[in-house]
Formats: sequence, C-alpha cells, structure tokens
Amino acid sequence: MLTRRNFNMPYVTVKMLEGRTEEQKKALVEKVTAAVVETTGASTDKVVVFIEEMSKSHYAVGGKRLSDE
Amino acid sequence: MLTRRNFNMPYVTVKMLEGRTEEQKKALVEKVTAAVVETTGASTDKVVVFIEEMSKSHYAVGGKRLSDE
Amino acid sequence: MLTRRNFNMPYVTVKMLEGRTEEQKKALVEKVTAAVVETTGASTDKVVVFIEEMSKSHYAVGGKRLSDE
Amino acid sequence: MLTRRNFNMPYVTVKMLEGRTEEQKKALVEKVTAAVVETTGASTDKVVVFIEEMSKSHYAVGGKRLSDE
Amino acid sequence: MLTRRNFNMPYVTVKMLEGRTEEQKKALVEKVTAAVVETTGASTDKVVVFIEEMSKSHYAVGGKRLSDE
Amino acid sequence: MLTRRNFNMPYVTVKMLEGRTEEQKKALVEKVTAAVVETTGASTDKVVVFIEEMSKSHYAVGGKRLSDE
Repeated sequence: MLTRRNFNMPYVTVKMLEGRTEEQKKALVEKVTAAVVETTGASTDKVVVFIEEMSKSHYAVGGKRLSDE
Repeated sequence: MLTRRNFNMPYVTVKMLEGRTEEQKKALVEKVTAAVVETTGASTDKVVVFIEEMSKSHYAVGGKRLSDE
Repeated sequence: MLTRRNFNMPYVTVKMLEGRTEEQKKALVEKVTAAVVETTGASTDKVVVFIEEMSKSHYAVGGKRLSDE
Repeated sequence: MLTRRNFNMPYVTVKMLEGRTEEQKKALVEKVTAAVVETTGASTDKVVVFIEEMSKSHYAVGGKRLSDE
Repeated sequence: MLTRRNFNMPYVTVKMLEGRTEEQKKALVEKVTAAVVETTGASTDKVVVFIEEMSKSHYAVGGKRLSDE
Repeated sequence: MLTRRNFNMPYVTVKMLEGRTEEQKKALVEKVTAAVVETTGASTDKVVVFIEEMSKSHYAVGGKRLSDE
C-alpha cells in the first residue's frame, strides 16, 4: 500500500567532475544520505542519490572549458 | 585566473516534496554541503546546492499521484 | 533488504506547458507508468513520475517565447 | 510559422539503470510517446523522449550504491 | 518525415535567480539561440530554450542560502 | 565573503546530439556565455555551462529513435 510515508523520498543528484575514486563515491552517497535523513526526516531507505560525472571538455566556467585551460 | 581548483565545484540538487520548514532547508543545505566537502575534497565555498520542491499533484509512485491518494 | 529488484526503478520526468487539467495529469501518470512497466520489466510500484510545468514566458522555440507570440 | 500548436511539445526523460536491450528501448519510446499523446493531446511528432542510463556505481538507494551490494 | 536534420535540436536550459525582467528574458532567449545556431549549425527554429528560476531560499553556495545572508 | 553578487550565477545546460567537434564546443560555450552576460548582467566568470551529449539510440522524436531511422 502506498502511504504518505512512501512518498517522502528525497532525490539527490550530485554533479561533479569525473575523477573521484570508488571509495570517495561510496563515502559521498553514505554521508549525503545521512545528512538528508537527519535534516528532512525521511527514512534512510527512501533516499535516492544519483551521481553525474562531467568530463573536462563538457564543463565551462567564465566561457572557458576546463580542457582548454 | 581560473585554476583546476576553481572547477572543483560539485552541484547538488535535492528534489523533494514541498512542506519542509525554512529551518529544515537551512540545515539541509549546511549538512549536505559538509558531507560533500568531507568526501570529495571540494572547498566549502565551491559547493552549490539547489532545492527543488514538488507538489503532491506532480509526483507519482506506482502510477498514482500523492494528491490522488 | 535491498536487492537488485529494488534498484529497478525508472524515473520519468514529463516537462510540458502548464494548463493540463488534473484529470489529464492523473491519466498521464497512469498510462506512462503502464508503458514503462510493459517495456522495461520494472514492477509498477517502483516507477516514479515527476511532472514539471513550464510557463509561457519560460519556454522558447526558435528564439521566441510563447508569451511573445 | 510558430503557432501555439508547435509549442505543445512534451519532453519526457526516462532515467534508468543501464542494461536494457535496443528492442526494449525502442518499444519504451514508442509506448511512452503513445501514452503522452493519448493523455495530453499533443501530436505524436512533437513528443520528445530522452533516455538517460545510470551505471551501478552512480546510483544509490538507502545510502548504498548498487555496485556495493 | 523525420530526417537527421529534424533531430538537430539543441535543448538549452538556463537556471538563474528569479528577478530578471520580461525584457531581459526575451533578450536572453534570442541571444542564446543565436549563439547556439552560430556555433552548432542547428537551424534557428529547432533550438529550444527553457528558463528555470530559483528563489533565494532554494539556492545555496558554501552551505548558506541567499535568503540567509 | 559571499555577497549577492556571488549568487548571480546563471547555470546553462546545452543538451545536444553527440558529434560536434571540440572547436564547435569551445565556440559554443564562449558565445553562449557572452549572450548570457550581455542579457542578464551576470559577470563573465560566474557563468557556468554544461554540455550534455545524447547518443542516437537515446533520443526520440515522434516515438522513433534516431538510430531506428
């Protein structure tokens, strides 16, 4: 049965430059999930985290891509 | 000058049901930012957090909107 | 317990111009969910649908916003 | 000429774990498009569908990535 | 008929703090569309621009929301 | 110190079919950034551009993927 509780699912997307290790990503999703649970009251098993990695040639600040530095 | 350091900017989006208080949102961005800094090595001032709120009529699990429960 | 099954959760976002009725949105999430279940093998209760509405002044095709037509 | 009709373009994004076959993806976009047309009144040729695949190491539920199961 | 040409549709999303005037938004979509056409070879009428506005309480840099400054 | 100025950071995402050259992408982020600066008043170094590429098998118009043409 779907209850209001089941809907309390924060969806977190972390977009960052590629290059972090598996250990870093593992720790990242753990700590971010804990932070969301602590502050929003969602239950741990309902928190979803997506990681999106960017390459240096697809990310620009100030009109210049990192790959063009 | 743009350095590699400046590019180390994780962008975090937290999508959740509307209804959290301002205090909860304030704490959410603080704790999530700290979790990202701790695990990715980004400097605090480079972490960006966006909150996106969903209404009950624009969110469905199992083919049913929360507003139709 | 988290199993591979629990991870089989397609997340569908439908972005469209504001103005659809509640009945249309209700039918939309039902039918889209059914289409996803039928073609991906996900279980119904794991399919998540988000609706995002755009206003006429925040959507442009060909360099012109709908509100400027 | 741009008419209001041309603006009636729902944009659908389906985010899911990688691993579906080409046949499944082909069927997915067909069926989802049909579901959107039927329920929103958009014309078929205006419906856009994007598929986004996630890897097991970039997707977590309950603070744990699928690749860490 | 759908041709490869029809698929050459860049989709641009500009996410920014709320508060720009209608004139600014109108100019924004015009200029951004022109920039995309000039550099990617897409035809003008195929370029789509979405504007997404953020409120001060849903946007944080360095763990602090603009509304908490 | 974070000032309101620092928050004036438009985030632009350009989603398009893969296949553009590095030169095209370089020019794209330059011109789009300039267009955003000119029309919103943001300072150049605060504009962020993300490029997202789609493959032909993950993009459909009218219920048909480009790879199925």
